[in-house]
Amino acid sequence: MTRRLYDLCGIDEELRFSPYCWRVKYALAHKGLDYETQPWHFTDKQELAFANHDKVPVLVDGDEVVTESYEILHYLDRVYPDRPLLGDTQAEARARFFKFYAERSLAPGMMRTIIMDLLNAIHPKDRDYFRETREKRFGRTLEEFHSPAKGLSQLDQALEPLRGLLGESNFVDGDAPAAADYLLFGPFMWARIVSTADLVSNADPVYAWMERMLDLHGGLGRSAMRIVDIEGAYDA
Amino acid sequence: MTRRLYDLCGIDEELRFSPYCWRVKYALAHKGLDYETQPWHFTDKQELAFANHDKVPVLVDGDEVVTESYEILHYLDRVYPDRPLLGDTQAEARARFFKFYAERSLAPGMMRTIIMDLLNAIHPKDRDYFRETREKRFGRTLEEFHSPAKGLSQLDQALEPLRGLLGESNFVDGDAPAAADYLLFGPFMWARIVSTADLVSNADPVYAWMERMLDLHGGLGRSAMRIVDIEGAYDA
Repeated sequence: MTRRLYDLCGIDEELRFSPYCWRVKYALAHKGLDYETQPWHFTDKQELAFANHDKVPVLVDGDEVVTESYEILHYLDRVYPDRPLLGDTQAEARARFFKFYAERSLAPGMMRTIIMDLLNAIHPKDRDYFRETREKRFGRTLEEFHSPAKGLSQLDQALEPLRGLLGESNFVDGDAPAAADYLLFGPFMWARIVSTADLVSNADPVYAWMERMLDLHGGLGRSAMRIVDIEGAYDA
Repeated sequence: MTRRLYDLCGIDEELRFSPYCWRVKYALAHKGLDYETQPWHFTDKQELAFANHDKVPVLVDGDEVVTESYEILHYLDRVYPDRPLLGDTQAEARARFFKFYAERSLAPGMMRTIIMDLLNAIHPKDRDYFRETREKRFGRTLEEFHSPAKGLSQLDQALEPLRGLLGESNFVDGDAPAAADYLLFGPFMWARIVSTADLVSNADPVYAWMERMLDLHGGLGRSAMRIVDIEGAYDA
């Protein structure tokens, strides 16, 4: 049986930047589970019809098809209970906050900073789709939305509680990483893959945590292809 | 044996607004533990000399003296393990984030909004001390720091992940409240006691949570004296 993860790819099939897919790749590594990835583009909606879904990640595990990153973490804890990701009832309730903190506090500031880099990293056949859906969401053009000054300032403020916590412990989940770390690190991988923007000062406890996260699971994050690894692809 | 909590008071001895003390009062009620409060003023430093500390809350429980709100929650779980507040290792690590989120994301926006109301609620003998220490911390006068427009906008942005979570569950800790709820609710009680500022729209899931929190433990929060209950004390 092969475990398969549908994973968003960009201008290169090995350029994988989806923050939601990164959560799942870290979670699978945390559990020590093998898998293959299936490269997918934003506009390959038909390929996910079997899952009744139109976005990645989609995990196919034997007969099981699971969508949405948080639900996949939940599924993994249920079927592979060793090395808990979300943990028991009280721990799981708290983990859920980090999903929202990542998506509603951290990612928006990053998005304003890296949006033009992100567009550049997306496969050409997906760019019209990306522009149309995001411009509708933001209520303005990507070029108008793009503002590293505003984005970095927003991110800096949003990171304040994380900075406090990581000044006292190595991981969000304590001495060892688990779901809260992976939920938050997804957006950092997203930005790292498509952009060279320095989101966090290297004197920040958040920076030291990012370095630890990159090293985890045999350097899973650090070894991932970045846009700067593709000759001629990045001219910022 | 009487359990005693040193609790900050304002212009009236029954006006109790410390966000850190509110965390502990909710935690004691959660555990079903009786206690008496000892009213304390910012400048009564000598009265806490026995605890080698200069701030409240200070909990005296038989021979034990415990300071700092988070440490008191920890102590209560250790000595009275029924009805866990922080919970096991993984849950506890995650709870710690909410301490920082309350203190570094939520309270600063509230502070800018209610600072002049807060000064007005403080006992006259404490006001010089309060002004001096806070103006040093803010790097400007209280009057310059005071900006409900900026404060409410900052708070609105900081509440975004909490809003997402509470759109899906009754409490931060799930179906029932525990440490994460109490850690976050402290600052909301602080603002409620000293000010009539509407921090959150009544259509916001955070507002519905605040109402639930006020009703908990026999209306512990709702029945607390507010500045508006003191005749002539509040003329905003």
